[in-house]
Amino acid sequence: MNQPLKLGIAGLGTVGAGLLQLLAEHGQQIGSNVGRGIEVAGVSARSRDKNRGVSLAGMEWFADAERLAVDPSIDVFIELIGGDDGIAKASVEAALKAGKHVVTANKALLARHGTALAGIAEKQRVALNFEAAVAGAIPVIKSLREALAANKVRRIYGILNGTCNYILTQMQEEHRSFADVLKEAQDRGYAEADPTFDIGGFDTAHKLTLLTSLAFGTRVAFDQVHIEGIEAVTQADIEAADDLGYRIKLLGVAQMTESGIEQRVHPAMVPKDSAVAEISGVTNCVAIDGDFCGNLLLAGAGAGAKATASAVASDIVDIARGKSPPPFGVPFSQLKPYKRAKLGQHQGAYYVRLSVYDRPGAMAGIAGRVGERGVSLESIVQRRPRGAQPGIDARPKPGSATPVILITHETTEEAMRGALAAILRDGHVAEKPQMIRIEPL
Amino acid sequence: MNQPLKLGIAGLGTVGAGLLQLLAEHGQQIGSNVGRGIEVAGVSARSRDKNRGVSLAGMEWFADAERLAVDPSIDVFIELIGGDDGIAKASVEAALKAGKHVVTANKALLARHGTALAGIAEKQRVALNFEAAVAGAIPVIKSLREALAANKVRRIYGILNGTCNYILTQMQEEHRSFADVLKEAQDRGYAEADPTFDIGGFDTAHKLTLLTSLAFGTRVAFDQVHIEGIEAVTQADIEAADDLGYRIKLLGVAQMTESGIEQRVHPAMVPKDSAVAEISGVTNCVAIDGDFCGNLLLAGAGAGAKATASAVASDIVDIARGKSPPPFGVPFSQLKPYKRAKLGQHQGAYYVRLSVYDRPGAMAGIAGRVGERGVSLESIVQRRPRGAQPGIDARPKPGSATPVILITHETTEEAMRGALAAILRDGHVAEKPQMIRIEPL
Repeated sequence: MNQPLKLGIAGLGTVGAGLLQLLAEHGQQIGSNVGRGIEVAGVSARSRDKNRGVSLAGMEWFADAERLAVDPSIDVFIELIGGDDGIAKASVEAALKAGKHVVTANKALLARHGTALAGIAEKQRVALNFEAAVAGAIPVIKSLREALAANKVRRIYGILNGTCNYILTQMQEEHRSFADVLKEAQDRGYAEADPTFDIGGFDTAHKLTLLTSLAFGTRVAFDQVHIEGIEAVTQADIEAADDLGYRIKLLGVAQMTESGIEQRVHPAMVPKDSAVAEISGVTNCVAIDGDFCGNLLLAGAGAGAKATASAVASDIVDIARGKSPPPFGVPFSQLKPYKRAKLGQHQGAYYVRLSVYDRPGAMAGIAGRVGERGVSLESIVQRRPRGAQPGIDARPKPGSATPVILITHETTEEAMRGALAAILRDGHVAEKPQMIRIEPL
Repeated sequence: MNQPLKLGIAGLGTVGAGLLQLLAEHGQQIGSNVGRGIEVAGVSARSRDKNRGVSLAGMEWFADAERLAVDPSIDVFIELIGGDDGIAKASVEAALKAGKHVVTANKALLARHGTALAGIAEKQRVALNFEAAVAGAIPVIKSLREALAANKVRRIYGILNGTCNYILTQMQEEHRSFADVLKEAQDRGYAEADPTFDIGGFDTAHKLTLLTSLAFGTRVAFDQVHIEGIEAVTQADIEAADDLGYRIKLLGVAQMTESGIEQRVHPAMVPKDSAVAEISGVTNCVAIDGDFCGNLLLAGAGAGAKATASAVASDIVDIARGKSPPPFGVPFSQLKPYKRAKLGQHQGAYYVRLSVYDRPGAMAGIAGRVGERGVSLESIVQRRPRGAQPGIDARPKPGSATPVILITHETTEEAMRGALAAILRDGHVAEKPQMIRIEPL
């Protein structure tokens, strides 16, 4: 038996406590499988006395995470503090510079400083593992870094935020409004009091940037992500999507195009009969399209103490087994600069919901604006307002507006935005058009 | 740069040619990522002159795979010959004993000799990698061996045979008979001329045994699998499943129970609105339920030259990076003996399709037989024959039989089989009852 692997865990919130529970239950078995014991030598957190439901017996207490990070008693520093700067960043840097392996679940930190940290890790010949930073227990980091290493990835996308997927699923299944479901999610603790970070798409964007770098071998480029949240998705969109054979999901998508990489986070229509459409509630998924592997889909628990602990533990197992591929799959010196594709050049089909004034010439004007940009339509549906009687209540009242749904054939984002801006200017619509991208699966 | 890693490839069929294509396209990039070149030093196949669409330039030709396996010019022996004995087994054994790492896609070989081969590999301190043996490009071996190493797996199941899933999907979507779809699949090359190996469930069973050993740390036990194929699934079952909210899939399931492990391959009803139900055509999937990771689903291309080559290449990448965890995740000495649970003790719900004679007392007799075994019913549906007019054609003709569908609550296999045997003995049914297990997802 080799020397035991000694861990220092900084941050004993939900995930930290989950990891201690996992190690208490399976630590001995893991040690026997990997051929060396796994020991928690030291821990650090804000409060020493909080009851976490796990024993800290035999673990040295560090009031200061940075001190733990460099302590000679540890081989691996496990950062579960969170935050894209401050003590998390300082302690991870300190650990790497002191020659410690680092395991972190901190997507915000890596989205901002991942490239630089990977550089330090490589120089120090230590591991920087972050399976838990994206999609919880789903082994997507390992899959990209190792299993798909022989592929040229063309596109990767996923449902990466459980809060958003829970809200959209509830809106779909229970026909409730966004605001209503959000309120309930907050009451139940599925959404934060300030939900912007989740529902605004920023959490998804953090995770997406890490997947992008792993998929394409590029430097992490969080400031190059196009981000839209789910705030503007209405029950009318959910229903129209259902009628047309789609579900609406908040996707993070990274795609290699001829002019560069698209990184985009936005609500997207996906075919109802696809496996991705069936990913409901807080479940996450990641789909990878590679030139040899074809389309892969990985799905599972994207958050939670146990799922995240499972991912952190897998990173520890890899270190115990003595292997550490480069953090982003390719050596630091080979990470390519990020080249951003213009979103205006994005090619795809679109869903558009218009609130059209009931007056002569309105539809003709709209169709003209769409046509002059070269956008061709797959379908136009003018829906009777919900609850209205056919032919009676649906008769136009002067000045009233009717919902009209357009589905386009493939076109460019630029053409689409131009057409919608013109339609809005023409005054045929009562409100800003809703536009949702249709993502081919 | 380190010494290049030298490969010997035995078997240049579809997969072998796919691997050579992958290495021709991405070999240099892979070498640069892993920090050492990847070179094909030697190849072996039945015919030297066959046009495979790939160049063999610079590769030494070996007429004898066993000679290639031990040749000093290679570091890794890649067995793509197939077959559970003969030259495949002899050459893999020879390679391991000569201290070569081995990569194989051969599930039949491993299902029969996997435990013994793992023992040799460990003794020789070399890798025995077989990502391509199960579910093609889906990184399920790596996930079990590494990513989920810190979990206690409770159940693992999957759609592991593309031919069967293609046939069942076509029966579902095009309302065609088993025989009709099978014939077409054979004509298109999706099914073998002798399809028994696929449709009889044996291929699924081979793959399942490998997943079982990885999931539970047990010796490979192919002779302990309960195997049923899809031959007996009728269009009537597919339609009834659809009405009841299910799809029928051929699953391989390994489950830890109190009395041991269940390994079973059989058609199963899965809920229509699950992601597994949406796995259609030749796609494969594997679902893993672990105590910390929760439920994970991995899906993708289960066969084909490119997908399989992707998996083989990932095994090569791991070896090039210098890592070789034990073949079945735990050291050979720790592989537990396989303890089989009695299938009679299997707990689950059942779908039963009976062809009941239209005569007084038949349904009462059937209900009595079910009840006396303690089986309670969730639903009973007597379906009007397709195309029949309500109340007219459906009127019973003397001596005719009507299809009756039963869905049970959870019970044991023993109770179920006992009840059905009694029903058959009583003479109320015109043919042997159809019984399909309902698999909870």
